[in-house]
Amino acid sequence: MLVGILIIGNEVLDGLTLDTNSNWLARRLIPLGAKIKTRITVRDELNAISWAIHQLMGGGCDVIFVSGGLGPTHDDMTLQGLAQALDVELELNPQALAIVERQYQWLHERGLVDTPEITDPRKKMAKLPEGTIPLDNRVGGAPGVLVERKNRLIIALPGVPAEFKAIYETEVEQLLLKKHSRSYSEVVIEREVKDESMIAPLIDQLMTQFPNLWVKSLPPAYGTSNKIRFWFSLSSDEEGSETLRKIINRAIETFDELLKSTNPGK
Amino acid sequence: MLVGILIIGNEVLDGLTLDTNSNWLARRLIPLGAKIKTRITVRDELNAISWAIHQLMGGGCDVIFVSGGLGPTHDDMTLQGLAQALDVELELNPQALAIVERQYQWLHERGLVDTPEITDPRKKMAKLPEGTIPLDNRVGGAPGVLVERKNRLIIALPGVPAEFKAIYETEVEQLLLKKHSRSYSEVVIEREVKDESMIAPLIDQLMTQFPNLWVKSLPPAYGTSNKIRFWFSLSSDEEGSETLRKIINRAIETFDELLKSTNPGK
Repeated sequence: MLVGILIIGNEVLDGLTLDTNSNWLARRLIPLGAKIKTRITVRDELNAISWAIHQLMGGGCDVIFVSGGLGPTHDDMTLQGLAQALDVELELNPQALAIVERQYQWLHERGLVDTPEITDPRKKMAKLPEGTIPLDNRVGGAPGVLVERKNRLIIALPGVPAEFKAIYETEVEQLLLKKHSRSYSEVVIEREVKDESMIAPLIDQLMTQFPNLWVKSLPPAYGTSNKIRFWFSLSSDEEGSETLRKIINRAIETFDELLKSTNPGK
Repeated sequence: MLVGILIIGNEVLDGLTLDTNSNWLARRLIPLGAKIKTRITVRDELNAISWAIHQLMGGGCDVIFVSGGLGPTHDDMTLQGLAQALDVELELNPQALAIVERQYQWLHERGLVDTPEITDPRKKMAKLPEGTIPLDNRVGGAPGVLVERKNRLIIALPGVPAEFKAIYETEVEQLLLKKHSRSYSEVVIEREVKDESMIAPLIDQLMTQFPNLWVKSLPPAYGTSNKIRFWFSLSSDEEGSETLRKIINRAIETFDELLKSTNPGK
């Protein structure tokens, strides 16, 4: 399962808002066997959104997540951008409208909005691209959207992190479990080593010895510490994650022996 | 000045590391009149890096920043990816080598590395794409890289935030000031409003009244607060930033009047 992520919002590109949805999502998807291929972040512009969806679809992503731009204001253009990318029209979706109505009714009953009336900006959130399916949102006004096209699944969720996470958990994760195909295991360790450049040949040696193993050194700021984190990860179509974990543990043992022989004083 | 940002690293895509360089950079570039157009994040893979550079060059970006992948280990592929994108070879750059040598000498004198010798992994950091210029790095081992091609400036910096920031500040910002063309001003305010959907037509009205003004509502998590942040921003080729600031202040006054008339109880 190759995954593409599209983040929409001027506030993210302009550095006002830190995109934490992508990292949260990756941490949830990788244990399901997903590989995150590309992430694209674009402005609130129709052509930019449509371009990015095309890039991710063309780039071989099986699942494309879109975050942001589903709200009621002028800058919320995801539904229109998705419609443009899919070459379909927007239409009022009765199920989506029912979700929007229920949510504003709920807010109204609690005195959080003045009226439960479905004004035009609220109705906008229920105008989905033809052929797409709304995803229920119980923690916000805007439904998510799901569509399958050319064997690719596109899932658009609101950018507010609480909504993004809740809809993923209640509406999306179960769907993806069906696509679950690969096992995955990873371990991050920290070791005292003076210098990343000294470790490079050692990592090369380890990766030759353990095929498919990915080892990445994550160095601290220069001169601030002599502890480097090492991230070991391994995925497989055949082996279970228990087996992968055992292989990683063996690799770490080998790594520590190699370290010791390079760095006998430690 | 249209800017593209390329972030390289499995650890970012896989959610182990939060990319904070992009936001920091945007906050520095926007006051210089830059518009951040697109950000692409890719894995440590040669073709992915080269593809992304092509996308950003083809997408009309005047300046392309690349973060990460300049270090000594196997997964550091930015120089090779950049060479592939520019269709040139890597060559040992004497100036870059001098930087690497000086840095390891410095570390060695302080007992932070065992040897100042330029081993192969260290030498790798000085093998730059033909026709590129090294950017001095006094807070890490890997030089940055600068190249101008087809009227586009490509600037590659190490991903470790302390190094990314230091090289930007000492080596890059001055260069960009020469390209400075547009003025920019922005203000973020917070207002008590019950509901974003109610505000949508009001923002539309404001943006009609103040041409070029961009107003974006940044809502909190649903039901957690009735305070919404509003981001007002404006850029111009003709007016100075003082004038832009005054226009924004007038727009905020108008906004508050509109709010009051919609929300008389507040």
